[in-house]
Amino acid sequence: MTPDWVKDAVFYQIFPDRFRIGQGPLGQPAPVREGFEPWEAPPTLRGFKGGNLWGVIEALDYLQELGFNALYFCPVFSSTANHRYHTSDYFQVDPILGGNEALKRLLEEAHRRGMRVILDGVFNHCGRAHFAFQHVMENEAASPYRDWFHIYKFPLAAYTKHPNYAAWWNNPELPKFNTSSPECRAYLFRVAEYWLEQGIDGWRLDVPNEIDDDEFWREFRRRVKAINPEAYIVGEIWDDASRWLQGDQFDAVMNYPLGRAILGFVGGEALDKDLAARSGLGRLESLGALAFHHRLEDLFGRYRWEVVTAQMNLMTSHDTPRIFTLMRGQVERVSLAFALLFTLPGAPMVYYGDEIGMPGGHDPDNRRGMIWDPEGWQTHIQETIRRMAKLRRLVAPLRYGRYQYLYGQDGHLAFARSHGTESVVVAVNAAPEPWRAQIPLHGIWSRGERAVDLV
Amino acid sequence: MTPDWVKDAVFYQIFPDRFRIGQGPLGQPAPVREGFEPWEAPPTLRGFKGGNLWGVIEALDYLQELGFNALYFCPVFSSTANHRYHTSDYFQVDPILGGNEALKRLLEEAHRRGMRVILDGVFNHCGRAHFAFQHVMENEAASPYRDWFHIYKFPLAAYTKHPNYAAWWNNPELPKFNTSSPECRAYLFRVAEYWLEQGIDGWRLDVPNEIDDDEFWREFRRRVKAINPEAYIVGEIWDDASRWLQGDQFDAVMNYPLGRAILGFVGGEALDKDLAARSGLGRLESLGALAFHHRLEDLFGRYRWEVVTAQMNLMTSHDTPRIFTLMRGQVERVSLAFALLFTLPGAPMVYYGDEIGMPGGHDPDNRRGMIWDPEGWQTHIQETIRRMAKLRRLVAPLRYGRYQYLYGQDGHLAFARSHGTESVVVAVNAAPEPWRAQIPLHGIWSRGERAVDLV
Repeated sequence: MTPDWVKDAVFYQIFPDRFRIGQGPLGQPAPVREGFEPWEAPPTLRGFKGGNLWGVIEALDYLQELGFNALYFCPVFSSTANHRYHTSDYFQVDPILGGNEALKRLLEEAHRRGMRVILDGVFNHCGRAHFAFQHVMENEAASPYRDWFHIYKFPLAAYTKHPNYAAWWNNPELPKFNTSSPECRAYLFRVAEYWLEQGIDGWRLDVPNEIDDDEFWREFRRRVKAINPEAYIVGEIWDDASRWLQGDQFDAVMNYPLGRAILGFVGGEALDKDLAARSGLGRLESLGALAFHHRLEDLFGRYRWEVVTAQMNLMTSHDTPRIFTLMRGQVERVSLAFALLFTLPGAPMVYYGDEIGMPGGHDPDNRRGMIWDPEGWQTHIQETIRRMAKLRRLVAPLRYGRYQYLYGQDGHLAFARSHGTESVVVAVNAAPEPWRAQIPLHGIWSRGERAVDLV
Repeated sequence: MTPDWVKDAVFYQIFPDRFRIGQGPLGQPAPVREGFEPWEAPPTLRGFKGGNLWGVIEALDYLQELGFNALYFCPVFSSTANHRYHTSDYFQVDPILGGNEALKRLLEEAHRRGMRVILDGVFNHCGRAHFAFQHVMENEAASPYRDWFHIYKFPLAAYTKHPNYAAWWNNPELPKFNTSSPECRAYLFRVAEYWLEQGIDGWRLDVPNEIDDDEFWREFRRRVKAINPEAYIVGEIWDDASRWLQGDQFDAVMNYPLGRAILGFVGGEALDKDLAARSGLGRLESLGALAFHHRLEDLFGRYRWEVVTAQMNLMTSHDTPRIFTLMRGQVERVSLAFALLFTLPGAPMVYYGDEIGMPGGHDPDNRRGMIWDPEGWQTHIQETIRRMAKLRRLVAPLRYGRYQYLYGQDGHLAFARSHGTESVVVAVNAAPEPWRAQIPLHGIWSRGERAVDLV
């Protein structure tokens, strides 16, 4: 069973170093307060801007007012990297973020508002600063952690370009865990359990395909669901995810294929395909309405319906250019793409700042400091998201209804979604010119019933 | 004011990796359970034997029955070294030791028995695996922790023989903190406060003279005493400690000069001076009773009396050869040395295993796995310590009374200790032959009063 709450969720993705600096109490240990890059300066690969979880707490009202009811955080644990994918300690929230105390408060404040919180779980590899790896660095074969990694030779060449141990993409900064070591495995499961016990609502799994072991993920699921049956397990799988979506591993995946299709349909000639191609989005195809529809049908037919409605649907993230830049600043196209994202089956997810039309090219440019001055906001996009989130909240078919094709030609698509006795028709004009057409309703409304324009 | 409880304390020093393996519940994170050196094998410089705090809890009855009422632990925080002086994380008890949970339980169990617990505070330097140092390793000048260390040049050469940053004894494994950085300073003080809040009874300070800043230690004291006015602050100062014992920095120091004097007086021709000289004990001098007395008088006169009675008196530790080996296995001399240690002013401290006459030369040989099979015990030494600890507990002058010289010649010394209306005479024969003498009492007992033989 996939968690019910996800079907009602509207996710907001936060990259903690770049979202907001809050003035919380000193953490444990005291976070550093100085020595950061200026907030407005172009981000650098190694620089820190000092965003923290106290800042997120301060922004919860802003997010709630826009209609977000779920937060997905890029990693928050102690790390040597500004993106925090290089984990130093899985049991400690990074001191710069405010430490464990700040996360505890954030969970309380979010839950008080009915908002869910999921964290990024990086279980395939750790940072070379991780205590177990450092233990092996120092003690080599005498370390009881020697089996936690795949070591080819001592001494470890961790600070060279040629790691002599298994590492993610052969990057010496990221030693791969040996998940077949019972103690290492137990450690990782314990991490997953611990944070659920602390109150998080699920895990987004980083590169889970790299742990090529279905039994690992089955046990992961059993342990997670034993603590919270409604916990959400969503994997970062960029392509077909059937292997993991049989009900015994993940609840859902990050639905990049859907996002790629929306971009291809809505983007038109504005779409910067070259920029997209340099990211995980890959080569985007321009899609007419019919081709887009076929893509959707394929995607929605591939997995069980309870998976489809629990998918994390997104177009952009910290791993892609920003949608505003992909659409070359065409605000209407960005707004339309979000409108589609919010009306299709699955839980929509918005990357921080995309709701205000922040620009951003390739990493690290897509990770700029959030703009908090409304002068810098593209309010048309923001208003679209606010309205679509509200619509989705008020209109159950947008959350639970099956996708039903009605009409598709050139840049024009209409589809219906029905749930119980309610039906919604969504008509999209992705072309630059106004559009009028007769849309066959195929009996989704009974004869004589009156339609209401919700937009 | 020095803490009153210390004057009544009998300390036992525990080297956690080597004392006892207990079977506690899994910690946070799960400790490794396998991959250790055999307990009985000669210790190696980098090997781990897997002792843990659950084992200490199991042994509390043993220690209490011997008369110990205070434990001094070598470092317990997360570390890459078996001695744990290379701290990785000051807020985490090492997972192998059982994690924070095990220390919490240990504190509860010790306090329930009226036993105090002090921890080893290594504030001058950390291990190169420490999160802040690793942060600077990865991010160099972009790290907000860059000022926490004394860095001469980037990139850091931390895994070479020539560190380009300040390090303890130029050992690249031990980067020296920049204690003049306000944030680094705040961090270290927070560590000190945190563990007092968790219930420890004081700090033994590792190489505190290396932080050449009286104001640092004054603020350290203010913060520590604000949380627990009875907390004990005892510095590792091997020689004259006047600078730190004016009342505004430490309560006391590790009284190696007293230990050296006892060894010099009691050791006689048995004493292995060459072995001692290769440790911090330095060159030991053979002392006759009068010379020994003069040494004592000098030591007891050097500091205020409330400091003298709160000193941590010891002969051996993890930094010296074991007393059994220093005395070439002469059990009587070892026992006599301990008897003296327990009858002189100041709190006696016994290094784990010395009470059962474990042998041990230079590091790492002085850190063997504790012998738990009574077949391997020198029970004469153990019995002496049990009796002397009991005597010290029952006879207040042994804890509070001033040292008063009565008689000294060759290997024969007699002194008195008086407190209130009670007086004790201690007569020591450090020579191999029996000894009879008239000892002038200088009026310490009123005429007509009867003396009782306490031994």
